Amino acid sequence: MINVSEASQIILSHKQNYGVVSVGLIDSLGRVLKEDVLADNDFPPFNRVCMDGIGISFKSFSQGRREYKIEGVQAAGSPQKSLLDPNNCIEVMTGAVLPVDTDVVIPYELIEIVDGVAKVSLDVVTKMQNIHLKGRDKRVGDLLIPKNRKITAAEIGVLATVGKSEVLVAKHPKVLIVSTGDELVEVSDVPLQHQIRRSNVYSLQALLLELGIVSETKHFVDAKESLSKEIATSLEQYDVLLFSGAVSKGKFDFIPEVLETLSVQKLFHRVKQRPGKPFWFGTKVFDRVNKGMDEEKTKNFDTQKQKMVFAFPGNPVSTYVNCLKYFFPWYEKSVFGQESEMELAHLSVDFNFMPSMTYFLQVKLHHKEGVLVASPLKGNGSGDLANLAEADAFLELPQDRIAFKKGELFPVIRYR
Amino acid sequence: MINVSEASQIILSHKQNYGVVSVGLIDSLGRVLKEDVLADNDFPPFNRVCMDGIGISFKSFSQGRREYKIEGVQAAGSPQKSLLDPNNCIEVMTGAVLPVDTDVVIPYELIEIVDGVAKVSLDVVTKMQNIHLKGRDKRVGDLLIPKNRKITAAEIGVLATVGKSEVLVAKHPKVLIVSTGDELVEVSDVPLQHQIRRSNVYSLQALLLELGIVSETKHFVDAKESLSKEIATSLEQYDVLLFSGAVSKGKFDFIPEVLETLSVQKLFHRVKQRPGKPFWFGTKVFDRVNKGMDEEKTKNFDTQKQKMVFAFPGNPVSTYVNCLKYFFPWYEKSVFGQESEMELAHLSVDFNFMPSMTYFLQVKLHHKEGVLVASPLKGNGSGDLANLAEADAFLELPQDRIAFKKGELFPVIRYR
Repeated sequence: MINVSEASQIILSHKQNYGVVSVGLIDSLGRVLKEDVLADNDFPPFNRVCMDGIGISFKSFSQGRREYKIEGVQAAGSPQKSLLDPNNCIEVMTGAVLPVDTDVVIPYELIEIVDGVAKVSLDVVTKMQNIHLKGRDKRVGDLLIPKNRKITAAEIGVLATVGKSEVLVAKHPKVLIVSTGDELVEVSDVPLQHQIRRSNVYSLQALLLELGIVSETKHFVDAKESLSKEIATSLEQYDVLLFSGAVSKGKFDFIPEVLETLSVQKLFHRVKQRPGKPFWFGTKVFDRVNKGMDEEKTKNFDTQKQKMVFAFPGNPVSTYVNCLKYFFPWYEKSVFGQESEMELAHLSVDFNFMPSMTYFLQVKLHHKEGVLVASPLKGNGSGDLANLAEADAFLELPQDRIAFKKGELFPVIRYR
Repeated sequence: MINVSEASQIILSHKQNYGVVSVGLIDSLGRVLKEDVLADNDFPPFNRVCMDGIGISFKSFSQGRREYKIEGVQAAGSPQKSLLDPNNCIEVMTGAVLPVDTDVVIPYELIEIVDGVAKVSLDVVTKMQNIHLKGRDKRVGDLLIPKNRKITAAEIGVLATVGKSEVLVAKHPKVLIVSTGDELVEVSDVPLQHQIRRSNVYSLQALLLELGIVSETKHFVDAKESLSKEIATSLEQYDVLLFSGAVSKGKFDFIPEVLETLSVQKLFHRVKQRPGKPFWFGTKVFDRVNKGMDEEKTKNFDTQKQKMVFAFPGNPVSTYVNCLKYFFPWYEKSVFGQESEMELAHLSVDFNFMPSMTYFLQVKLHHKEGVLVASPLKGNGSGDLANLAEADAFLELPQDRIAFKKGELFPVIRYR
């Protein structure tokens, strides 16, 4: 039995590269950018008026002029005009190009217009005031968004500005989520006394949707032969298999055995943690180059593509915490190239946990004066699905300690 | 000109009720639950075995017996068996119903099986050990998830367990996002020297998608007559209109005027804030009952339905911060019935801002020992879209102060 950090290390060392795909602008939201986004023009692309008012010549103002005949209007979206007489002005609108031979913008609030003449009651103006200078924010060719960034609404705005109607993003792995356990019936069924409804596959499917991954689900019955056939087919059709159940020591826990007969290499089975101990993880290598695949098609991939098998224990909280603790970082490392920073929270009360294993404590989170505080739920152990909906996160309490003190900081795995 | 808290108050007092809709289980992820979810059965629904091993009678163990002939196997998903002879045992699997007349489960790790006889090498066992008692977590009829909760993967699991293949959630308002400004061209177009690409509508559309709202976008040209016609139609077809641009003092800023001629009541125009000052907000009341609508159909709605108009200034950062600061809380109050708690962050450096208005400072966020810290970006003012992609959030610095000190706590509006 290995410990949690060893398990994490093994999983992360098996990060995969699923290549890239081009998607429409709005569809790129939430995905991982796979191209550097450069400015296709200066930002702003011209000396841009940023107040509604008049554009004048600084020189004429410094020579004492305070009344300007209005020559015309420079609207946003119109080609650049020129000031014909330096003693006149042009009305200028926010977003418009600054007219040629004007270099000061004075807002309407500070002028009075009578009979086509703008009267300025200011003593001082600054050259280029209220003008957003061409290229001030960014120069053409500047890096606006580096690749491997998760695309939020802010990136969508920048991508639109530089004309990216199609965006290169990380491709998702094809994931199948499998339930096993003959006690399970469909959500729409009424269970008999000895049955319960399938729920883990839906929790997992929902967790993966939070990452943007649309996965499929299946149910395999607990019979060795059919299980073997189903898994063999699934290993060909999917990149990642997530199992829930049948990895423990029961008479019908065939998953580890069947996987090994199908040449899925076991990398570990059982982790020193609670809940989620009987977790099984393995990979199967498909040598694609030897299978005669087009080299061009595989260049975005590792040449040997591995299928990943995360076989989680069947209890709902075990499956849930293992997906967050192991699948999520593996996915992030695979698509971002690096793991995300671990957030820490302060334990709100003293807490004891005796066994020498990592404990994933169900907690509610709240912010108190800018500090993240984690309060343990009064839980009933790892099987309590309903508690999962009352908590916000798991606090990861390290192994080899028994007493955890109020105010101490521990890594937090949040799902809300 | 009103201040930020007044603007918020006015907007929040116009929360709406868009009723409810039934969606499939997985589609309910991210939406707001609109029914109390009760346990349809005890949790667990039977005395549930939670270790693979054997089930024995406590009485026979206390009488000294340590060897048990195996009578049979109680698999998960099989109807409950009975122990025929109290001196025998039944092999029991995780998830199975505890057999009648057994009340102790001993895991395989602690027994040895030879020739169909399980030998126990323990001195002490506890009644009901390794058994998850019927109804221990929840009783039939218990409230598992109260309504108005945002549905995460944890709730999906619970909903599945209680058989909710359809879930009642809050209906989204129908939102139209409108760009104006004749300088704007499509994302796929190459702008002329005096033009820029449309980007705000896509940022807004993406922000709304973060709330789960699928919105539509349109572009209206800056001409009073056509604008009036387009807006009139949109007010009939949509619940909420979000504008970006044409609310300032320019010659072509027709939006406020046109809205008022269409009987959209102005509730305020201009807020003491930077960026985003020229924000216009108003509502139009449609009296649906008087229009002869079926009472049954309107029972989930307020009888008078108001159309909301958020007319944001056209500069990208203004639009963005106003959507987060005003539309988001309005939406939350409308669908959850309450606003979410404001998160606070520590300012990382001393910062000065002179004008007497609320300043929305662009910051990067990081966690330091469980504390949220906000570091200002070196920004170039409100027009800098590219900075938006470099920052994570806005720190809301209150008006009527100039100096903001390192370590002080301020509300943070995060978008990443």
